[in-house]
Amino acid sequence: MGAALALGERSRGRTTPNPNVGCVIVHDGRVVGRGWTQPGGRPHAEAMALAAAGGAARGATAYTTLEPCAHVSARGPACSDLLIAAGVARVVVALGDPDPRTDRFGLARLRDAGIAVSHGVRADDAARGMAGFLTRQRLARPAVTLKLATSLDGCIALADGTSRWITGAQARAHAHLERSRHDAILVGRATWDVDAPTLDVRLPGLEDRAPMRVILSARPSAAAPPDEEARPPIRITGPEQIAALPADHVLIEGGAAAAAAFLRADLVDRLLLYRAPILIGGGNPAIRDIGLDDLGTAHGRWRLHDARQLGTDRVEVYERSPCSPA
Amino acid sequence: MGAALALGERSRGRTTPNPNVGCVIVHDGRVVGRGWTQPGGRPHAEAMALAAAGGAARGATAYTTLEPCAHVSARGPACSDLLIAAGVARVVVALGDPDPRTDRFGLARLRDAGIAVSHGVRADDAARGMAGFLTRQRLARPAVTLKLATSLDGCIALADGTSRWITGAQARAHAHLERSRHDAILVGRATWDVDAPTLDVRLPGLEDRAPMRVILSARPSAAAPPDEEARPPIRITGPEQIAALPADHVLIEGGAAAAAAFLRADLVDRLLLYRAPILIGGGNPAIRDIGLDDLGTAHGRWRLHDARQLGTDRVEVYERSPCSPA
Repeated sequence: MGAALALGERSRGRTTPNPNVGCVIVHDGRVVGRGWTQPGGRPHAEAMALAAAGGAARGATAYTTLEPCAHVSARGPACSDLLIAAGVARVVVALGDPDPRTDRFGLARLRDAGIAVSHGVRADDAARGMAGFLTRQRLARPAVTLKLATSLDGCIALADGTSRWITGAQARAHAHLERSRHDAILVGRATWDVDAPTLDVRLPGLEDRAPMRVILSARPSAAAPPDEEARPPIRITGPEQIAALPADHVLIEGGAAAAAAFLRADLVDRLLLYRAPILIGGGNPAIRDIGLDDLGTAHGRWRLHDARQLGTDRVEVYERSPCSPA
Repeated sequence: MGAALALGERSRGRTTPNPNVGCVIVHDGRVVGRGWTQPGGRPHAEAMALAAAGGAARGATAYTTLEPCAHVSARGPACSDLLIAAGVARVVVALGDPDPRTDRFGLARLRDAGIAVSHGVRADDAARGMAGFLTRQRLARPAVTLKLATSLDGCIALADGTSRWITGAQARAHAHLERSRHDAILVGRATWDVDAPTLDVRLPGLEDRAPMRVILSARPSAAAPPDEEARPPIRITGPEQIAALPADHVLIEGGAAAAAAFLRADLVDRLLLYRAPILIGGGNPAIRDIGLDDLGTAHGRWRLHDARQLGTDRVEVYERSPCSPA
């Protein structure tokens, strides 16, 4: 299942509106097929893995990060039918599919065909990997990550706006990898106007992963981008409008006003914090006023999920706490 | 040596102007004497350990965190003479004593008496433990720790000044233990006037460790404290004046202006950062302007020495980098 989860990560941010599923097929202790949802959402992971396995799928075990779909679409057959037809003996599933066309029907169809089904294996990790799809199903909006790169004293720039560079090369490469795992990157209008950010993925082999660019601007009349722009940005006038974007994973990259707007609207699911071992003093703060008037209510909302050193910098990932209102 | 270092920590912040040394005497694999510099600076660690060992010191090994003193004072004999008289066979020393009355003379006297001497064992840890004494010897000022307790976005309070509580009970207990290891706690005038901080040590068994209180106030005319005050604060009008305090370990506890004044004067040797998993947004920043106008010069000054979780909070200790100007 760990391998299937890793395969699912390959197309995170590129399968909207479909989930980014991973699948591994094992026969007699040997991997005979691997698959992951392809960009655009098809083929599904199970179809790809079964095609690779061919006849070796008969009697095999399929590990898949999401309940195999039970619905036939114009774009392809139901994965549960494909698994039955291929003669797999056992299917191990991380997470049930909340899509009402599949929810429980996928597993039931497999069991009815005499296939042994295990369910719930590494479900938490699968939920993290497919956060965008699941948030869209549950809350009808994308999953939102807020990225901040700060000094030890929480500044994102000098008072004059200089922010190159606070973090080092390793942290910046990590941030570019995170970009590649999102459909859309959002910045506020001030950041757009001042930095003119390209918001692309500057990592060898991932240059084509540049997500769509979104600008949060209260002024809908802002000048249109020039015609020749390869990736014309989408403008939204309020944080709630991310629900309308054709994106299930949105990364907020700056600045302090955009961060505050999304936090104030309680639309942030994950914090991606890069922190350099420097002090700035009197610099630009990371987040503007979010309407907090009681320290007590600030506690219990965020839970540390992961942390690591990146050179002399540190990255921390916080998730919305299960005890926090969603 | 690890045990001797731990003993030396017992009176850190209470031995000024003497170093807080630890000493362990071992005979045939058994600890026969332990000592640490007593509050006020006398007796010395070696004298206390030798007194505990008695006749068992003959042929023993003495582990001591600092070169035994070579100078006789009105307050006691030279420790190198005491070790020779007790007949120890071997002395293991962490760090040489920079005091010119002892520097190298202490070790030479032991060697001349036929005692085997090892030198440099865990010298870095010893230098950390006796940072106050060593900084006083080298720079004629105390060692200075800057403490900050912040949210993830670097705020030390809400915009209205509310700061109770950002960190949790474990972090606050840790901060009180740090207080007990300093001679003096310093706050800025605004913090003093607003919070009226007691700056004491609220830990069972350590209540008597309350350090002297120091206020940084540009206005020397500030009202004198009431007569009945048990620990009347000392007022200084500029950060350089800490050199005149009868303290070798100074802890700066607040607020943003005092922190900036000491950083600007390059008088901070150690950062003690408590960080709670909350976002404040638009709150009070931890550090005011320190005159930084180039991000490049901010890098390379601080090196992470230690970090640990304290409940849901995290404490990090940064030290002045060896590459940084002292």
